[in-house]
Amino acid sequence: MEDPEVIIGSLNPNDTRGKTVTCKAAVAYGPGEPFVVERVLVHPPQKMEVRIKILFTSICHTDLSAWQGENEAQRAYPRIFGHEASGIVESVGEGVNDMKEGDLVVPIFNGECGDCKYCKCEKTNMCERFGVDPMKKVMASDGATRFSTMDGKPIFHFLNTSTFTEYTVVDSACVVKIHVDGDGDLNPYIKRLTLLSCGVSTGVGAAWNTADVHFGSAVAVFGLGAVGLSVAEGARARGASKIIGVDINSDKFIKARAMGITDFINPRDDEKPVYERIREMTCGGVHYSFECTGNLNVLRDAFLSAHEGWGLTVILGIHPSPQLLPIHPMELFQGRRIVGSVFGGFKGKTQLPHFAKECMDGVVKLDDFITHELPIEEINKAFDLLTVGKSLRCLLHF
Amino acid sequence: MEDPEVIIGSLNPNDTRGKTVTCKAAVAYGPGEPFVVERVLVHPPQKMEVRIKILFTSICHTDLSAWQGENEAQRAYPRIFGHEASGIVESVGEGVNDMKEGDLVVPIFNGECGDCKYCKCEKTNMCERFGVDPMKKVMASDGATRFSTMDGKPIFHFLNTSTFTEYTVVDSACVVKIHVDGDGDLNPYIKRLTLLSCGVSTGVGAAWNTADVHFGSAVAVFGLGAVGLSVAEGARARGASKIIGVDINSDKFIKARAMGITDFINPRDDEKPVYERIREMTCGGVHYSFECTGNLNVLRDAFLSAHEGWGLTVILGIHPSPQLLPIHPMELFQGRRIVGSVFGGFKGKTQLPHFAKECMDGVVKLDDFITHELPIEEINKAFDLLTVGKSLRCLLHF
Repeated sequence: MEDPEVIIGSLNPNDTRGKTVTCKAAVAYGPGEPFVVERVLVHPPQKMEVRIKILFTSICHTDLSAWQGENEAQRAYPRIFGHEASGIVESVGEGVNDMKEGDLVVPIFNGECGDCKYCKCEKTNMCERFGVDPMKKVMASDGATRFSTMDGKPIFHFLNTSTFTEYTVVDSACVVKIHVDGDGDLNPYIKRLTLLSCGVSTGVGAAWNTADVHFGSAVAVFGLGAVGLSVAEGARARGASKIIGVDINSDKFIKARAMGITDFINPRDDEKPVYERIREMTCGGVHYSFECTGNLNVLRDAFLSAHEGWGLTVILGIHPSPQLLPIHPMELFQGRRIVGSVFGGFKGKTQLPHFAKECMDGVVKLDDFITHELPIEEINKAFDLLTVGKSLRCLLHF
Repeated sequence: MEDPEVIIGSLNPNDTRGKTVTCKAAVAYGPGEPFVVERVLVHPPQKMEVRIKILFTSICHTDLSAWQGENEAQRAYPRIFGHEASGIVESVGEGVNDMKEGDLVVPIFNGECGDCKYCKCEKTNMCERFGVDPMKKVMASDGATRFSTMDGKPIFHFLNTSTFTEYTVVDSACVVKIHVDGDGDLNPYIKRLTLLSCGVSTGVGAAWNTADVHFGSAVAVFGLGAVGLSVAEGARARGASKIIGVDINSDKFIKARAMGITDFINPRDDEKPVYERIREMTCGGVHYSFECTGNLNVLRDAFLSAHEGWGLTVILGIHPSPQLLPIHPMELFQGRRIVGSVFGGFKGKTQLPHFAKECMDGVVKLDDFITHELPIEEINKAFDLLTVGKSLRCLLHF
């Protein structure tokens, strides 16, 4: 394996280890306010923490809604958002034994401490200490931040990760070491690995771990963003015979067809409810439906498009509305089931290295997910691309 | 095996086969109106139908709410209610090859045709033609009734079964033949088999088939009627180590303790929410919770009493309210699951004979479920006993 240092060129831990680093970051100062790319201070990792030099970071809708401050209780500014990234370990804090300087890593917003009762249970990928917590804005160990402005004011963390910065500090439970067997230019691999940090793992994992899509099955995917297309790719890899994509933007079908979607429905093309059209296409309904939009009407369509008796609906979308599940208790007697999926059901530290290898081996194809690449200075443009639905994943580099 | 004719004494198919039978039945003439026990006409079974001489029938809450006409769209009078029973085949219609005159049988409201895609799928016990249908009031083959008043007016069927009558006609898909190896008095066995027709199968099956309760697990049962206690008995048989019963009637705990319940909560004893009390008792929640009340607040308590990450809530209660599931979509991301269970997930004709054998072998104990026994003439008293919660199961005989 090549020394990853070669790739990024300038990293030399001897210059930075134990010191506060000054580096570039995209800081959000208020809900929806344009990001300010500026110099920030990144303090050294404390006990069981890791400081990472970020190579690539991308943007997903969770960043978008958090930046816009959709949920007031979760607001905290100034803040460094971002949670999908790849990078190199710059230095580790006391007690970190499972990775070292120079290791290639991806941060994970859904951590795995390895010690709690959830981590020890094979039925869940929750973690008692480092699970998803949108309210969290400081480090768990001391309640402080590892970021500050150049004049010393704290900058808050986001979702266990904060990756819109050249350097970040995260708990070691939220970092996964990835092995890449490469001889030549590792950059393309590393770019694709960025996607494992959130979107692709979430989608493929929902198909593999949560739904356990079987060979020959019928699948419906509602919402053809990066997560929805990852679901489709995961279903394709499992051998699903029909993968129906549903989106109100027909332009998405061109790309979607190349990524596993076999049939496409635009709800606006026909007054007939989508679930009825899907039932007609599949002899009564799909085996698995995936809701990747965060819209309750879509959720109900997804639920009703699953076959009576055995159909499973997996929720991946974030639902900000306070409204309850649009399902009557008696409807569960028809044998349809509905479950949620977080990070695709993957236990990050345990399972992601193997999944990364499968991705590198081509079991799932990640090439088409990266549609744009921009320098961090153009982060506001990257958010625009996502907002208008033009990008699947726009990689930012430093 | 004893000839079942011995038990019931008077059955002689040679006298009745192919003829219209005049017999006793409890007929409901309007919502909540007292049953009238009178002579009715029971016509011969048609193709793929079976006429059964009912030996014992009992009453469950589904009879109660249907008789009261809670759901206006489902009303149909005059009608013969009842769906939990045991009996002897009096005669069979053309094409019925899997049972014959004299066979001991239990009718099942959730039939199994054996031919539809549901019956051929191991994941469900639904049946396309003979599944539960509260709107159904006539026979599937010809849309007519097999019951009529003495002056020839049709009397409607109920839930594929209609058992408050000395003779009933049901589709063969809704009849299960049971083998009993007995030397002496078979009456006690037959009485207990009556319970397999609905309540006990529903409860035990929910624990075994739907939830798959595991050895050493923690379980909560909400509502300690016959179904809830059957769940407890099923969980006990599986080796659950803690089985918490929840009911607003503390009197039920005496009986419940003898039937598997290890701990009891009366929600009225404490202002603290039930789910919090259960979490305290079980290190964070039970593995399995069962909702057997049909009350939405109880349903939410059951859901929240299941452990994050892996807890499963099974709905057995009938929810007449139009209100939706009291669960927010994002709550599913905490890994709790919720499913419905109909007839305990049992495929009646395929699985009930084996389950009956297990019951006879004492794998589950049914002795305590039958709390009362009355002649059919006292059916109104039997309904009163159920309404005020004094009976678990009151057997009616003819």
